[in-house]
Amino acid sequence: MKKFNIGILGATGMVGQNYISLLENHPWFNVTWLSASERSAGKKYCEAVSGRWHMQKEIPSQVKNLRIKKISDIADCKANCDFVFSALDSGVAKEFEEKYAKAGIPVVSNASTHRHTKDVPMIIPEINSRHLEIIPGQMKSHGWDKGFIVVKPNCSLQSYMTPLFALHEKFGVEKAIISTLQAVSGAGHPGVSSFDIIDNVVPYIGGEEEKSEKEPLKILGKIDGNEIKYFDGLEISAHCNRVPVIDGHLACVSVKFRKKPSKEEILDLWEKFRGIPQELDLPFAPKQPIIYRDEADRPQPRLDRDSDKGMAVTVGRLRECNVFDYRFVGLSHNTVRGAAGGGILNAELLVKQGYINR
Amino acid sequence: MKKFNIGILGATGMVGQNYISLLENHPWFNVTWLSASERSAGKKYCEAVSGRWHMQKEIPSQVKNLRIKKISDIADCKANCDFVFSALDSGVAKEFEEKYAKAGIPVVSNASTHRHTKDVPMIIPEINSRHLEIIPGQMKSHGWDKGFIVVKPNCSLQSYMTPLFALHEKFGVEKAIISTLQAVSGAGHPGVSSFDIIDNVVPYIGGEEEKSEKEPLKILGKIDGNEIKYFDGLEISAHCNRVPVIDGHLACVSVKFRKKPSKEEILDLWEKFRGIPQELDLPFAPKQPIIYRDEADRPQPRLDRDSDKGMAVTVGRLRECNVFDYRFVGLSHNTVRGAAGGGILNAELLVKQGYINR
Amino acid sequence: MKKFNIGILGATGMVGQNYISLLENHPWFNVTWLSASERSAGKKYCEAVSGRWHMQKEIPSQVKNLRIKKISDIADCKANCDFVFSALDSGVAKEFEEKYAKAGIPVVSNASTHRHTKDVPMIIPEINSRHLEIIPGQMKSHGWDKGFIVVKPNCSLQSYMTPLFALHEKFGVEKAIISTLQAVSGAGHPGVSSFDIIDNVVPYIGGEEEKSEKEPLKILGKIDGNEIKYFDGLEISAHCNRVPVIDGHLACVSVKFRKKPSKEEILDLWEKFRGIPQELDLPFAPKQPIIYRDEADRPQPRLDRDSDKGMAVTVGRLRECNVFDYRFVGLSHNTVRGAAGGGILNAELLVKQGYINR
Amino acid sequence: MKKFNIGILGATGMVGQNYISLLENHPWFNVTWLSASERSAGKKYCEAVSGRWHMQKEIPSQVKNLRIKKISDIADCKANCDFVFSALDSGVAKEFEEKYAKAGIPVVSNASTHRHTKDVPMIIPEINSRHLEIIPGQMKSHGWDKGFIVVKPNCSLQSYMTPLFALHEKFGVEKAIISTLQAVSGAGHPGVSSFDIIDNVVPYIGGEEEKSEKEPLKILGKIDGNEIKYFDGLEISAHCNRVPVIDGHLACVSVKFRKKPSKEEILDLWEKFRGIPQELDLPFAPKQPIIYRDEADRPQPRLDRDSDKGMAVTVGRLRECNVFDYRFVGLSHNTVRGAAGGGILNAELLVKQGYINR
Repeated sequence: MKKFNIGILGATGMVGQNYISLLENHPWFNVTWLSASERSAGKKYCEAVSGRWHMQKEIPSQVKNLRIKKISDIADCKANCDFVFSALDSGVAKEFEEKYAKAGIPVVSNASTHRHTKDVPMIIPEINSRHLEIIPGQMKSHGWDKGFIVVKPNCSLQSYMTPLFALHEKFGVEKAIISTLQAVSGAGHPGVSSFDIIDNVVPYIGGEEEKSEKEPLKILGKIDGNEIKYFDGLEISAHCNRVPVIDGHLACVSVKFRKKPSKEEILDLWEKFRGIPQELDLPFAPKQPIIYRDEADRPQPRLDRDSDKGMAVTVGRLRECNVFDYRFVGLSHNTVRGAAGGGILNAELLVKQGYINR
Repeated sequence: MKKFNIGILGATGMVGQNYISLLENHPWFNVTWLSASERSAGKKYCEAVSGRWHMQKEIPSQVKNLRIKKISDIADCKANCDFVFSALDSGVAKEFEEKYAKAGIPVVSNASTHRHTKDVPMIIPEINSRHLEIIPGQMKSHGWDKGFIVVKPNCSLQSYMTPLFALHEKFGVEKAIISTLQAVSGAGHPGVSSFDIIDNVVPYIGGEEEKSEKEPLKILGKIDGNEIKYFDGLEISAHCNRVPVIDGHLACVSVKFRKKPSKEEILDLWEKFRGIPQELDLPFAPKQPIIYRDEADRPQPRLDRDSDKGMAVTVGRLRECNVFDYRFVGLSHNTVRGAAGGGILNAELLVKQGYINR
Repeated sequence: MKKFNIGILGATGMVGQNYISLLENHPWFNVTWLSASERSAGKKYCEAVSGRWHMQKEIPSQVKNLRIKKISDIADCKANCDFVFSALDSGVAKEFEEKYAKAGIPVVSNASTHRHTKDVPMIIPEINSRHLEIIPGQMKSHGWDKGFIVVKPNCSLQSYMTPLFALHEKFGVEKAIISTLQAVSGAGHPGVSSFDIIDNVVPYIGGEEEKSEKEPLKILGKIDGNEIKYFDGLEISAHCNRVPVIDGHLACVSVKFRKKPSKEEILDLWEKFRGIPQELDLPFAPKQPIIYRDEADRPQPRLDRDSDKGMAVTVGRLRECNVFDYRFVGLSHNTVRGAAGGGILNAELLVKQGYINR
Repeated sequence: MKKFNIGILGATGMVGQNYISLLENHPWFNVTWLSASERSAGKKYCEAVSGRWHMQKEIPSQVKNLRIKKISDIADCKANCDFVFSALDSGVAKEFEEKYAKAGIPVVSNASTHRHTKDVPMIIPEINSRHLEIIPGQMKSHGWDKGFIVVKPNCSLQSYMTPLFALHEKFGVEKAIISTLQAVSGAGHPGVSSFDIIDNVVPYIGGEEEKSEKEPLKILGKIDGNEIKYFDGLEISAHCNRVPVIDGHLACVSVKFRKKPSKEEILDLWEKFRGIPQELDLPFAPKQPIIYRDEADRPQPRLDRDSDKGMAVTVGRLRECNVFDYRFVGLSHNTVRGAAGGGILNAELLVKQGYINR
């Protein structure tokens, strides 16, 4: 198979760097086009990120010497890319993602801008790949030819959303109270000041609780004509905390079901849970999307964040709850599954299901 | 006033060190007698803790050269002390606290051993000082002369118990789901291995969730004849996490009331809340037991743990909850309010109310 | 004594905040005038630092409601202040410190701008208070009436400079190789990104090694007419590292003397060392400027940084060196002794010796 | 090639776990025999380390169910292993390593016990593989048949020893003053208490400075008859510090040469440096043993410890020294290159050079 040519919008930021690092040696995708802010345009990528390349691996050799383009060079992008990943800040995303789509370029976005646009699907491929079916309507209503926009949800909810969904179909998740302990990489770079977080935790992350509560309802929603109707049968309340951890968001979850399952039923559903990415054997799909650990003190960010290359969710500590039905702890890698890796899995799904083609 | 002579059982451990450090220059209490394990008996205190004194202040000069006694030298203790603080591990506490009480020595304990003994009051002085009224019955039923046992609850619940109690009387706390982020000093020394907690959090602390859920019910209970009946109108569910913080336990609390208050009513009750320790103006009583911070990102362990010498509880982020009525964040200093400082406040109360005298 | 009225230039930054926090209740000084950037001018201080007050204590009540002035309102400052502390960034310091001095306002500066100006004394009061004698010459050569500039050296050298000086007079320090482990507060706020320093150290701090090597030579220098001649008999080589510590710079020092002292002589000189601030009993002077700790593993930042309110230097681990004569470890609080506290001690000295008066 | 059967002495400790984790899928070696303390003997490995397996990867499946033997079952070991890795504490190593050698089992040791035994080679394969030539003499003098003992040096010196050696042959390293910043994993588990190291550094590691200073002299020594004579032309002075880092020891090095090289000569020698492991293309040999980084702020533990699977040494910041000739910073992974990985490389060398055979 000839590889797809990929552009990255916002290539010099933390999320852009994660895309570039994760896409090295991707079997289907070739990074060939980069854009960033005016300041970087015209520079080689390695010059533009000199002194602020934050990945552990080196800059991939095929990207190092790419010249950075202006975000406004949409025609140039169109001429060179089959689709783009958007790692733009939400303000810039608002201005440009639709322009790219209009120009015929599919946009697989990490930004929050279009998460609640009614005809833009917000995808966790194991959960709601069927929401992609709204794409033709999205294109039609805008009069777009080949372009469209697909987004992924916030990193904070990846650690509990799939484990809840795996139980939801059979037992109906009705209420969930969640406290997250989130890693500093979620704030980008420089992000959280070390002075604020060494020997400390910060019980507040701007906007994060709202995202953690509202985005799941769209993901569990149904397509109704030209929009995705939010699920209205679930109440979520989230406390979001920042902790001095490099990578890995952890969530303490208390959950009430419409019909209370047994502990064995829950463990069994998690063990056997597979989604479309597993069926299609997508390159970034974790073999086992939900890994349950028996040890009393797992999951832990440093030990479990990299499970199945950072794409699996690890859960543990399933136990009865005095107030609701059950409690458990979930963990996912926020910059892999929760950001660039999740975007890549979305793109793989779009390619495999024929939404993106050359 | 002539000062009371104080003994400390388990004087060389972390809690014992905290007692010794906090009692320096106490206006009422004089540390004159120390016991520790066999290994330390006979040594000067400064020798016994050489290389393992973990307090920031130096060993107080009046304690430095005290000879450590055997825990079994109860008669020697009786001859030299008006009462003792027990900083014993629960196993040793089980063996010795009753013997001290039997010998006529009041025991103000930090250990978990007698927390659920039916006629032993478990006191947070701002909340349930009236439970002290069971002491005469306790003494009588054992045939004890001057001795008795009083305990304090676990450190994990200090950050939410007083704020909930301040609202409970008027509005009835019915359900609470709580996630704690607890400091490493709570595990003593060496306690948590650095290898386990740097760049990490551990979502499990053995026995802590049970304590966090059950102890509040006794504290809210009522004396009924010769026992304290547990309150049965409150359901608590706790997730307890260890985080890389030196001191200060934080709790994310979601709470449902029998009668939902307004936000203003809650803030007003917290602002005005005072307990017996404030009325009696006890030396270790915080002037304002509950301090509410308006900033979006407070309380934080490093910034708020020392408020009013570590004896106040700091709360913040009061906001509506999508599932229950309200959410907030509470914080208290686990080794001060949550351990030795709480024990000292209990002793001050016992003295002031005449339970302990010379 | 009527208190001096004090202005603070750069009052909203980290160093400015430290000055304001440390000066609360100062027996001689009253903070009455504040300046900051254009953005803050006109606002109340508490508004200007809202959301970015980084001190553990609250904003002192007498400062909270002060209106911030423009840095260019020099006449207003002159009308209201006896002298100013400059907590300006070096660029702004370059533009304004001389203007303030010219206007007749003594400037006690923390900035690096004038550290190597030939007639500006760079003072550690225990070491080179005699350098103040150049002030009349400085004023005369500029034609300044009552104003002048005095600076303090960089925070990185406070942990080894006084211990070396205490030995230098008698034994002659000839060579020193030094590795520092520096706290993140030295970089201000936001300063070091948490993503860069959790589970990590950074073996580089821009400009810090040069300062650590060159500034000591001026401090040990002699006034020669209208300039301070640098001492040329000492070679220093510094490695400066950033470590995940909130406060407290530590230095590992290997030193060669012209005449090798015995270990006892060193300990004795450190024990007995006193400087002018101790003789004059200045409010911020530590009683014992150099505290030696016998324990094998001290000094440590978290345990020793606050000794004598953060103004003492703690040393330990004095032992023979295989290459030079001796090795030891020094520690000082970088934002107290190394910044605002050091500036305040300089001002106290200037007042007591009559350089500043009303 | 048929794989060698390997035993691990001290298999349940941190170093033993590292051996087991690193040897998974080793092309030449098969772990088939494990011993540990009495307490663990008879248990399956996975049972024995239950709740204390500290590696990020799972226990390899071929090891999980191995039954742990007693350390005294030497005959059983002999019957089942071609050689053993010793991850024993030094006390037990003293008792057993010679017994294993006597029984005809080559011992590749990580323990410090025999590091200064005159006829035991202490090997960094890139530096002194020729010291293996003393093995026949060692065997002969003890009357050992097929067994012998080979050791590796302490983890603290791996970050500077190879970079110094690469320059030593041509320019003669004469003096070195070194400060190390060492990771907590070097102390094993539980090792360093989190209470001692969060927001802190500890400027002392028992015994570490002596090892860092003395072991290099044996490594640079020469075989003289039946003993290895220590090199006497180099003076090293080490300051060893513990820092809150999980893995990776960093060293700040100041060095004086007999003949001062140019900066280019140093960089060139490092760039081109290759040793016997590279010539022999041993499985664990890093392709480039010394990696120089140009960035001003590298190497850093979190970013560079894993270079070439944790077996390369990363250096940076080469610059002139005001006191000696040059300064630089070195970094190596303490539990890989500095412990189990270094032991495995030693074993590969022994196999390839025919000292170990079936």
